[in-house]
Amino acid sequence: MDSTMMNVPLSLNHLLERAGRLFADNEIVSRLPDKTLRLHSFGAYYRRTRALASALQRLGLKKGDRVATLCWNHHAHLECYFGIPAAGGVMHTLNLRLAPDEIGWIAGNAGDRFLVIDDVLLPLYRQFAHLHRFEKVIVFAFSGAPVPAEMTDYEALLANADPDNFEYAPHHEDDPVAMCYTSGTTGRPKGVVYSHRSTILHTLVASLGDFWGLRGTDVVLPVTPMFHANSWGIPYGAVMMGVKLVFPGQHLHPDDLLDLMQLEPPTLSLGVPTIWMSLIQTFDAAQAEGSPNKGRWKLPAGMRSLVGGAAVPEALIRAFDKHGIWILQGWGMTETSPVCTISYPRAELRDASADERYRRAAMAGVPVPLVDLRVRSDEGGDQPWDGESVGEIQVRGPFITGRYHDVPVDVEKFAPDGWLRTGDVASVDSLGFVKITDRTKDLIKSGGEWISSVDLENAIMAHPSVAEAAVIAVPDEKWSERPLACVVLKPGQSTDAAEFNAHLLRHSFARWQLPDRYEFIDAVPRTSTGKFWKMKLRERFAGVSVPARSPTA
Amino acid sequence: MDSTMMNVPLSLNHLLERAGRLFADNEIVSRLPDKTLRLHSFGAYYRRTRALASALQRLGLKKGDRVATLCWNHHAHLECYFGIPAAGGVMHTLNLRLAPDEIGWIAGNAGDRFLVIDDVLLPLYRQFAHLHRFEKVIVFAFSGAPVPAEMTDYEALLANADPDNFEYAPHHEDDPVAMCYTSGTTGRPKGVVYSHRSTILHTLVASLGDFWGLRGTDVVLPVTPMFHANSWGIPYGAVMMGVKLVFPGQHLHPDDLLDLMQLEPPTLSLGVPTIWMSLIQTFDAAQAEGSPNKGRWKLPAGMRSLVGGAAVPEALIRAFDKHGIWILQGWGMTETSPVCTISYPRAELRDASADERYRRAAMAGVPVPLVDLRVRSDEGGDQPWDGESVGEIQVRGPFITGRYHDVPVDVEKFAPDGWLRTGDVASVDSLGFVKITDRTKDLIKSGGEWISSVDLENAIMAHPSVAEAAVIAVPDEKWSERPLACVVLKPGQSTDAAEFNAHLLRHSFARWQLPDRYEFIDAVPRTSTGKFWKMKLRERFAGVSVPARSPTA
Repeated sequence: MDSTMMNVPLSLNHLLERAGRLFADNEIVSRLPDKTLRLHSFGAYYRRTRALASALQRLGLKKGDRVATLCWNHHAHLECYFGIPAAGGVMHTLNLRLAPDEIGWIAGNAGDRFLVIDDVLLPLYRQFAHLHRFEKVIVFAFSGAPVPAEMTDYEALLANADPDNFEYAPHHEDDPVAMCYTSGTTGRPKGVVYSHRSTILHTLVASLGDFWGLRGTDVVLPVTPMFHANSWGIPYGAVMMGVKLVFPGQHLHPDDLLDLMQLEPPTLSLGVPTIWMSLIQTFDAAQAEGSPNKGRWKLPAGMRSLVGGAAVPEALIRAFDKHGIWILQGWGMTETSPVCTISYPRAELRDASADERYRRAAMAGVPVPLVDLRVRSDEGGDQPWDGESVGEIQVRGPFITGRYHDVPVDVEKFAPDGWLRTGDVASVDSLGFVKITDRTKDLIKSGGEWISSVDLENAIMAHPSVAEAAVIAVPDEKWSERPLACVVLKPGQSTDAAEFNAHLLRHSFARWQLPDRYEFIDAVPRTSTGKFWKMKLRERFAGVSVPARSPTA
Repeated sequence: MDSTMMNVPLSLNHLLERAGRLFADNEIVSRLPDKTLRLHSFGAYYRRTRALASALQRLGLKKGDRVATLCWNHHAHLECYFGIPAAGGVMHTLNLRLAPDEIGWIAGNAGDRFLVIDDVLLPLYRQFAHLHRFEKVIVFAFSGAPVPAEMTDYEALLANADPDNFEYAPHHEDDPVAMCYTSGTTGRPKGVVYSHRSTILHTLVASLGDFWGLRGTDVVLPVTPMFHANSWGIPYGAVMMGVKLVFPGQHLHPDDLLDLMQLEPPTLSLGVPTIWMSLIQTFDAAQAEGSPNKGRWKLPAGMRSLVGGAAVPEALIRAFDKHGIWILQGWGMTETSPVCTISYPRAELRDASADERYRRAAMAGVPVPLVDLRVRSDEGGDQPWDGESVGEIQVRGPFITGRYHDVPVDVEKFAPDGWLRTGDVASVDSLGFVKITDRTKDLIKSGGEWISSVDLENAIMAHPSVAEAAVIAVPDEKWSERPLACVVLKPGQSTDAAEFNAHLLRHSFARWQLPDRYEFIDAVPRTSTGKFWKMKLRERFAGVSVPARSPTA
């Protein structure tokens, strides 16, 4: 017997049409370079997006052709999200925080035909233009500056197109819609290509009540860049549910974000821990007597905050909770669309202590539907979900990548049965909460025992005088590796190794797990996506010797 | 260029495995025939469901074989929802409210091999057993009575199975998982067959925040029978999100439901309007001085209530809102999995008057994602979404049926381009709200003008002395058809035609639209799924003549 269901492909075009029909009066707010706000209705968005698609087809875009974007978060970038696939193309978001040479290499590797770029980013473009020739450079006059004559004006392109007579490029649900390169800390970046199917499925799953919990009455502030794993997919969810969007443009300084929150209070915001850490520090400092910013800001009451892209310290969760803002931590990768796990308040924890709830909130969370997750031991078996046994997280699912664009199968990244090897080391407890203890590359192996650099970092960051901390392994003759802590103190604070060691011992660390050395630095180096860039610290402290000592258990 | 995403099929088995891993401590409550409550954990549910699947395979179940269920709402029925597909079979829910001959015919048409049946329903089984021979009759001892020797004991079957060594039947995502027959008011019922794919997609969409809004902290009371369009799909959503379920068993009397709500207060309940209408009348009557039930019940604070299966009168929405319970109306059919549209509080209506919000809540709602909806005029063109132009609703999507089981293509039910013809007549307004004015068969054509029987019914039901009302067309020599109203008065009330006409005129009806006759009846006949069964009224009043009159516009 066969199912009697219709064979209708999943399609981003359906979401666009639906938004145009149902949400015409909803708003999209974009902050311009001069910090003023520009307002678009979803109705206008719908027409502009179809105009973009129509114009791209007239420029000769063929099915599967790549159109790169080099843009901040704003309405025109959102138009690319749906307009490029509507024309049959693949939107390739270039990461403007990468080195120019790397951007050029990536554009070449992807074979991008066209580029849509913010006028304010043309100086960056000129630094890599020699590495890859785009057939058309389409300039969005974000700042309002005149578009160079040899380039194509985005607004003129739309104005001359005919959205009413546009017809969507026919497609299968497995056809590509978007492309993003991994921000590998080693080796060349690798391309991940999303399909209609994977994007719709990811959008449906991530939008569910316990995760993003998207509703039409939401106002969403995506601080996460739209060039970083598609801003975690929130632009697709916002169009699906008719959510008001508030795009911050290029102004991501805590003062700017707090100012924007006063003008357009979000119900949901998303970004990496760094952003929220500096935001809450700025906000709390403004409450002090005599602060020049006293009374300038309120935090939006009841806002949910999605934080991911790097481990979220428990201290950050507590700091926001003091203001009634609950942080939902997500974990994933460019390869996973990206949402794999989310830490949300579980029914089972309703009667748990506050400490217990904070502890869970500081974990990576539980796997979302459609994601299969396993923890593989070094021997290749599955670890039990007992909260203790650690191994590498491997995942499988319809919105997880199974290979890389234009790369022969990568045995380092995929298990023999096809599961993605994430490179993250974790345990999973009986409620399914994933606790990431380290990157496979960041674990410290001391005398045959593992020390988690992440656990040490979080405990050090819980010390009141610490702004941030990163722990790396340094070679040691006797123990093979030993931990070295790089600490950024808050302004005006001074603390020494003895004090930190006492603090760690109070936090249940064994004496042999304590760092052998503390280095006080100005800032932890970060990758373009805000993750701790430990490779840079390892280079910097390559020559540092740790004192010979006899660790005692 | 191709997408790099993994090719992983959508599968109910994934949801079952996920629930067993993540939600082992969550609860499933079932009310037994003696009205006591039985508790199962999701952990036990997971093991029992795998045991059922393993046992079915041992009984010789082959891929695609049908296993019928004839059961009330309880944990064992939920085990069938996942256990039968896990074994590769197709769960076919038989509707216990149909005539025995019809049930027998349906089982034969589906070719059911096995039957899982509640012991309390064996008397019904014996009335149709001669019409179809099941290879095995598996009896769930719902009341605890001994299982007849010639039948198979469900509990013994599970006890002898080995859930630990069970292996899921391999499948494609388009393979069937469940089957349900339409409750046609004319002609033979027709089989609809759902797939893994359609079920997962429907579950994801319907569970979203603005619709069911399912969260792990929810407690769901499904009054909607599990044999009626899969209880609208909520069992799948509950397992996906780890929601506590409270199954009412066979006790659907308002007193019983209100008693159950005291023991296990739900945050979300679902059922047809009839159930909620009698429930709120019972509850309100209990508040009166001197009522024997005074103080017996409280309504669960902040509960959401999903009502569908028939038009929801505005009066019902207002009656519940007085107690802080908001009714979300859904519209769909067995053929549509079933959720097609849901009326939820839209952001655009935040500043609207209460009357306006009630008016929208009494509409069928807006199309959910993945459902394409159009309104076809008699001439075959698409009507504009102007809130006025009416036509037949036609739908398309990956969880909508495109044909019937074992039936040659039905040109009455499908448009030439494959869209499903729903038989409902509606307009759609600029916010996408669908307003169903009638069934195509129930419209009244008077002097070349349409009169909506649904509009008349809702207005009459808003009269304080009316319990319910149905309006049908009766033949008229001069005007072709004229409306006749069948009215059920509340106990102790008496009202006459003149009073009703005055009431309708106050509700903006034109004089020519008023019913020509009012018949006072004891109850509106209903189909097995609770819909008004107007065919029965037409039969009953076939000989009634309406007085000759000259309608005046």
